Amino acid sequence: MKILLVGANGTIGKAVSAELEARHEIIAVGRTSGRYQADITDIDSLKALFDKVGRVDAVISAAGNLPFAPLSEFTPELYKQGWQDKLQGQINLVLAGSDYVDDGGSFTLTSGILSEVPIRFGSAASAVNAALEGFARAAAIELPRGQRINVVSPTVLTESLPDYGPYFRGFESVPAARVALAYSRSAEGAQTGQVFKVQ
Amino acid sequence: MKILLVGANGTIGKAVSAELEARHEIIAVGRTSGRYQADITDIDSLKALFDKVGRVDAVISAAGNLPFAPLSEFTPELYKQGWQDKLQGQINLVLAGSDYVDDGGSFTLTSGILSEVPIRFGSAASAVNAALEGFARAAAIELPRGQRINVVSPTVLTESLPDYGPYFRGFESVPAARVALAYSRSAEGAQTGQVFKVQ
Repeated sequence: MKILLVGANGTIGKAVSAELEARHEIIAVGRTSGRYQADITDIDSLKALFDKVGRVDAVISAAGNLPFAPLSEFTPELYKQGWQDKLQGQINLVLAGSDYVDDGGSFTLTSGILSEVPIRFGSAASAVNAALEGFARAAAIELPRGQRINVVSPTVLTESLPDYGPYFRGFESVPAARVALAYSRSAEGAQTGQVFKVQ
Repeated sequence: MKILLVGANGTIGKAVSAELEARHEIIAVGRTSGRYQADITDIDSLKALFDKVGRVDAVISAAGNLPFAPLSEFTPELYKQGWQDKLQGQINLVLAGSDYVDDGGSFTLTSGILSEVPIRFGSAASAVNAALEGFARAAAIELPRGQRINVVSPTVLTESLPDYGPYFRGFESVPAARVALAYSRSAEGAQTGQVFKVQ
């Protein structure tokens, strides 16, 4: 398969690449790295990307930033960063990519455990991750030509504990290599509208 | 209790008012109707509202608009209407209202069955409703002074079938009076971080 991997240079992206590159052609996309550069918050940037890349069998997104702050310090502007980046950015990949994904091909987006399990400072993350899961359930019944869409919801990565450990005390972490399997299951399997939890 | 009811003139708002007004003081808020007018998409409008109203025991939101369109016709601008209105608008009520809600008082927001069960044209609704449920789970652990927050998730209202019936074929509808009980359970009960489904 020809797989467009957005966020290829991140911790998850690298693990997904390592999992899939032996048997598939991986087209690495990053904001500033990778074979192609694109900004998921700008749908025109993604349309230009797909114009260049052409037809693909799968789109995997391991991209998207989220704001974190105490609820008492959150503002509409800060939430907006989450709606525009990790949420709308990943939706933009579906809107821009649907014409280019082959029949039966797939989109795999990334949410995260905070959709179900809250942590302090995580109100935008919980909302955005839950929204992505709701979006995928809905998009699954409307995508054309048998296209599929799933979301991978990982818990905190073992590799991220040095940075994020204090926010996730008591959470069991998972290595990115285990999370990568869920992207394989989505892209190489046949399910749609699902949340693959790696927790 | 002194209960601020936003969206008081809608189908749910009227039913909530009918359920609660015999035993509580209901302060009706609408965009253009009610005792006070406010625009939930404008946090300054809500801050001005709470400045006028002062301390309350509960805030109930039955407000918020959503865009509906086929997935293939959705645009980032159209999704943005959903993020800004039903999603950020209801979050704004929490941000603006937290200083005015009494110890142990509550926020009750409104999501909807599409968070879990998709329909055609409903990708923004599924995302927004799921986001509100994620937000409530997260806000529940950060609100100060024992303040609580829950979300009511109704299915299609019996009263709305003349307008929305074609989009909800095969869904069992519920009368608004039954949905109103869930708002009572949230505001008059003691739970927090919950989704009260009326489906």
